[in-house]
Amino acid sequence: MCELMAMSANVPTDICFSFSGLMQRGGNTGPHKDGWGITFYEGKGCRSFKDPLPSAHSPIAQLVTDYPIKSETVICHIRQANSGNVSLVNTHPFIRPMWGKNWTYAHNGQLADFQSRLATKYHLPIGETDSEHAFCWILDQLLQRFDGDEPNSEDLFHYVIGLCKQINELGVFNLLLTDGDFLLVYCTNNLHWLTRRAPFGKASLIDAEMVVNFDQETTENDIVTVVATQPLTDDETWHKMQKGEGLLFCKGQLIYQSS
Amino acid sequence: MCELMAMSANVPTDICFSFSGLMQRGGNTGPHKDGWGITFYEGKGCRSFKDPLPSAHSPIAQLVTDYPIKSETVICHIRQANSGNVSLVNTHPFIRPMWGKNWTYAHNGQLADFQSRLATKYHLPIGETDSEHAFCWILDQLLQRFDGDEPNSEDLFHYVIGLCKQINELGVFNLLLTDGDFLLVYCTNNLHWLTRRAPFGKASLIDAEMVVNFDQETTENDIVTVVATQPLTDDETWHKMQKGEGLLFCKGQLIYQSS
Repeated sequence: MCELMAMSANVPTDICFSFSGLMQRGGNTGPHKDGWGITFYEGKGCRSFKDPLPSAHSPIAQLVTDYPIKSETVICHIRQANSGNVSLVNTHPFIRPMWGKNWTYAHNGQLADFQSRLATKYHLPIGETDSEHAFCWILDQLLQRFDGDEPNSEDLFHYVIGLCKQINELGVFNLLLTDGDFLLVYCTNNLHWLTRRAPFGKASLIDAEMVVNFDQETTENDIVTVVATQPLTDDETWHKMQKGEGLLFCKGQLIYQSS
Repeated sequence: MCELMAMSANVPTDICFSFSGLMQRGGNTGPHKDGWGITFYEGKGCRSFKDPLPSAHSPIAQLVTDYPIKSETVICHIRQANSGNVSLVNTHPFIRPMWGKNWTYAHNGQLADFQSRLATKYHLPIGETDSEHAFCWILDQLLQRFDGDEPNSEDLFHYVIGLCKQINELGVFNLLLTDGDFLLVYCTNNLHWLTRRAPFGKASLIDAEMVVNFDQETTENDIVTVVATQPLTDDETWHKMQKGEGLLFCKGQLIYQSS
C-alpha cells in the first residue's frame, strides 16, 4: 500500500509541516520506501518533485521540507510498490492535460484485472501500474461523456464518484484528484481529513518532534484542509472517511459530499 | 529570448557540470531571470524541476547543481519572458503524453500571429505562451497525420522538421523536443552542439570557474552530446547550427540531419 496526502487552501499556503511528518513514513516511521512525489499548484501551473528513492533519505524530500512553496492545492504520495516495479515512470502523482488544465492524480490501493476491465483508447498509460491505468480510464470516460465541454464542478464530482465506485469493484481505490481548483477525494478504506480555520491552535506531528502554532502562521481568513491516509497530528480531530464516500473541496472548503 | 540546453547520452550521465554554467546565465552572467526548468528522463519516466525564480538564485537550481541525477536525455530552459507573464504555468519545459510516452519540449524565440496561424483542436494550451501553443500545434499535427500509429524515427524526424519550417515563418523558432529516446533539435538562429567521446579531455566552463576532466568521469564507451544556445565551454569545439537545420540524436549519436 501507499500513503496519500493532499491540501486545499483559500490562500497560497506551504505544506512543510505536514510533509515533514509524512516523509518520515517513507522508510523511517513507515514502510513506504519505494519512491515518493508531490505536486504543487500555483494558479493553472504546477510543478512536481519526484524521486524513486525513499523520502526519509531523499535530498529532494529534504529540499521540499525546508523550502516553503506556497500553493493552493497540493497532492503527495509515498509509495510501497505492489503493481509495477520501483522506477520513476511508476512514481505518483501522475499529471495529464484535460480541458486546458493540468489534472493530477494519486492512488492508494491495488486493482485486479485492471487491464481488461479498464480498457483505454485515448489516454495510454506510460508505466505499468494499476494506478496510472485507472487514471487514464477515468480521463477516457470523461472525454467520452463530456467531450470538449467541461462540466460544472457538481456534475463532474458526481460523475467521477460514479467511476470510482466502478473501479472500487476491482479492489482498494483511495483516490486524490485535482485540476488545481477542486480537490476530489474518494475513499475505500483509509483516508482522514481536517479543516483548519480561525481560531487556530497548536498541532503536534505524530512522526517527528515538531509542533506548530498555526495562530502565528496564518490570518483569520485562512481556510486550509489537509487529507491524509492516516492522521498526521495527534492533538487535532481528524474525520475518518467512510467506505464509498466521496468529497469535493475547493479553496479549503468542503463543497460536495456523497456516501 | 531564452537559453536552451539538452543532453543525449548512451549511458545514464549527470548534467551537473553543464548546468552549473547555464544556471549562472539566469540572472548572473546572463539576463534570463524569468524562471527556468529542467527535465530528466530515466527510461520512459521523467521528472522536472521548475522555478519561476531566477536560476542563479534558486534553491532548487542549487539542488540540481549538487545532486547528480543520471539520465540519458535531458532538456533544460532558462527564460527571458516575451510572450506570457512570469509564472509557473509559462515555465518550460512543457510535457505532454503521446503514443504512450512523455514528450518534452522547450523553445527559444518569438512567434507572431500564433493563435490564428497555429490553431489547435485536440491539444489545448494551459498557459499563455507562443511556445506552449506551438507545442500543442505540433502534437495536433502528429495526431492528425499518424493517429495511433507511431512512425519510425526517420519519418517522425522529417515530418517534424517540416512543421518547424512552417512555424519558423512566424518568427524565431529554436526547438528542443524529446520522447526520452530521441532528441530532436531545430535551429532558426542560435544553437550549438558537441559530442564528447573517447579519448576524453578537460573542459572549462565559460560562466563559472569550473574545470572537469571527463577522462576521470567516463568509460571509453560513453558517448554524450550536449546542445546549447551558446557554447558552455571555451576549450572545446562546438558546432554552430545553420538556419533551418534539423538534427536528430539518439543515445548521444547524430542519426539524421536536414538542412
